[in-house]
Amino acid sequence: MKNILVINAGSSSLKWQLFQHTNLTMIASGVMERMQTPEARFTFKYQGQKEQTKIANLSYEDGVNRLLATLQANDIIQSPSDIIAVGHRVVAGATTFEAPTLITPENLSTLKALDKYAPLHNPVQVDCIETLMRVLPDQTPQIAVFDSQFYLDMPAATSYYGLPYEDSQKYQIRKYGEHGISHEYILHETARFLQKDVHNLKLITLHLGGGSSITASQNGHPVDTSMGFTPLEGLPMGTRAGSLDAAIVPFLMTERHQSAEEIINRLNTQSGILGVSGISADMRDIQAAVTTNPRAKLAYEMFITSAAKFIGSYYVEMGGTDVITFTAGIGENDAVTRADICAKLAVLGVQIDEDRNLNGRGPRVISTDDSAIQVLMLPTNEELAIAKHVKAKL
Amino acid sequence: MKNILVINAGSSSLKWQLFQHTNLTMIASGVMERMQTPEARFTFKYQGQKEQTKIANLSYEDGVNRLLATLQANDIIQSPSDIIAVGHRVVAGATTFEAPTLITPENLSTLKALDKYAPLHNPVQVDCIETLMRVLPDQTPQIAVFDSQFYLDMPAATSYYGLPYEDSQKYQIRKYGEHGISHEYILHETARFLQKDVHNLKLITLHLGGGSSITASQNGHPVDTSMGFTPLEGLPMGTRAGSLDAAIVPFLMTERHQSAEEIINRLNTQSGILGVSGISADMRDIQAAVTTNPRAKLAYEMFITSAAKFIGSYYVEMGGTDVITFTAGIGENDAVTRADICAKLAVLGVQIDEDRNLNGRGPRVISTDDSAIQVLMLPTNEELAIAKHVKAKL
Repeated sequence: MKNILVINAGSSSLKWQLFQHTNLTMIASGVMERMQTPEARFTFKYQGQKEQTKIANLSYEDGVNRLLATLQANDIIQSPSDIIAVGHRVVAGATTFEAPTLITPENLSTLKALDKYAPLHNPVQVDCIETLMRVLPDQTPQIAVFDSQFYLDMPAATSYYGLPYEDSQKYQIRKYGEHGISHEYILHETARFLQKDVHNLKLITLHLGGGSSITASQNGHPVDTSMGFTPLEGLPMGTRAGSLDAAIVPFLMTERHQSAEEIINRLNTQSGILGVSGISADMRDIQAAVTTNPRAKLAYEMFITSAAKFIGSYYVEMGGTDVITFTAGIGENDAVTRADICAKLAVLGVQIDEDRNLNGRGPRVISTDDSAIQVLMLPTNEELAIAKHVKAKL
Repeated sequence: MKNILVINAGSSSLKWQLFQHTNLTMIASGVMERMQTPEARFTFKYQGQKEQTKIANLSYEDGVNRLLATLQANDIIQSPSDIIAVGHRVVAGATTFEAPTLITPENLSTLKALDKYAPLHNPVQVDCIETLMRVLPDQTPQIAVFDSQFYLDMPAATSYYGLPYEDSQKYQIRKYGEHGISHEYILHETARFLQKDVHNLKLITLHLGGGSSITASQNGHPVDTSMGFTPLEGLPMGTRAGSLDAAIVPFLMTERHQSAEEIINRLNTQSGILGVSGISADMRDIQAAVTTNPRAKLAYEMFITSAAKFIGSYYVEMGGTDVITFTAGIGENDAVTRADICAKLAVLGVQIDEDRNLNGRGPRVISTDDSAIQVLMLPTNEELAIAKHVKAKL
């Protein structure tokens, strides 16, 4: 059987799905978590069964090799040649990679030069590509699908920073956004779900999870997004600070006697919901503590207020909004956060149907029938989105 | 005659006004520009006359002394003792100075310790205070009015950053905003002009000039503002970048082989409208070039879009807006920028009356009678606002 394998490697995890290549039915999937730590674990899902193995210090290379071995041991593939193409999520393509790209030895070195645009992500993603180049038959196409490419389309007025123009050009500094694969997928899923033309839709998508981003799309293209040059900017997130005055960086360097990299690392890993609340990066813990812990309440209010403000700014930017769609971990599963964000949008005529929001199941409308803006919950699927890009390239 | 002198010292200029102390009638005024440079000049205005003198490398101390000498030479005051109180604009009071404060030798040293919160402003403002302490009779009250104090009132959810909470507390990092004296003044002037209760007003004030900031006020208090820990954040300004992904700082440090301070300096002085357009920091030059110069067009669009987005986010945050007031250099004098920002607000029901906007004079309503949000132009007067604070303390 001919399959497409999709590898979605993050800074500490690797998600994958194997698809039947003609109709993109998902055959098997899995996730490797806490990679390169003593607590690393390998989870494999097939035919409703789930198998979890602890493998201390699992590397990305070993993880990919184990994944292929597991597929063969379970007779899902007979040999690596049953995988006829691989899709890889790659975070940063800068302005160099404007579309899904077949990886060649030549452009692989170009890609490696972009590590600095996503130092926690691109190197491990390249590692996965190189591992599969060694293991799979020669000429098996490996296609990189970039998180950044969706946003290369944005108008200059929202994608440029107020930097000296020469700096923006020379160093390729602009808003690359994040979760572009997810926002693009949800844009098209929303249109499909509502049976509307994507080119006739003013949409705000909220991808809310450990990392969170909000994107405005109009005429089938993104017009703005909350994340920036890196995933640090935007909403306060699980452990990321979100938008900041850049002058805080040298101020904290002086006060804390740390390097710029150490400060940015603190802003990425010790800040946001975790840093403000002091208790957890997980929204479920925060909500449980909101009534008793003032710092948890503050963290929650910052998140809700920030989300509502982005929506307000995009509403004006697009001259209105037809639909707001929630997705990802928090967006799909947390009805309270959805309701609290939407409560702040009453002035825009948004009305949530409490029963649809709380008790409904699966992809659905959660607004009332006379809400001025329709509000949806749709599950995202980055791996399927990547598989579609791969299939289109074959 | 008993007078109140107000000193508004900036990073490269010093504006002052002398007020009759009972009714705050303005008696004389002046400005010193390009301080501490070979092109420094001292302008003095009195009874409709204007006198300008070039004084190379004029220091703040010499400037203040010359100001007193000029007042005496013109018989406006007979001796320094005719000045019964001085009001000083001070940019940064951090969370230490929560209200206009009578300067004493004790709190002067406390104030000096706050230099790091506004390194270009606080030191020269302290310099002016110390000069007048030496020159004026002992016990002449000198009152510091802080730009930061207006915003100490903001809700925690908008004034805190997503930093580790301990960092926000220990290093007093929060949104201090800027132009607080101006926004507070315009808040009360708007209520007075419309004969409304300030506590029953949802207001967005746009202080647009060389530096620009937008503030939302509700129930007589600020709820949000576009500037941040320093004046770098917010709209792209004359030479300041505005909001940025903080991770750009270390990225530019590496690429440009510069220190964090050098990068922040570049972001404050070589960026924004000047940096993007490459031609000028002055909005008049930009507008003149918009049709022929793509980078001028981009800079202008970034400014207009950013302003409209802040207004949209504050509209949602306050659950609506009653009034939008424009003030300061661009806000008072540039009808085209006002119209272009308001055109983006049509979705909120904002309608500008072209004739009122273009051809009207002085403080006025510039929206149509059936605009959903009233739009005003009101001149700001930071010096008068400071004088009022001083009078209230005497």
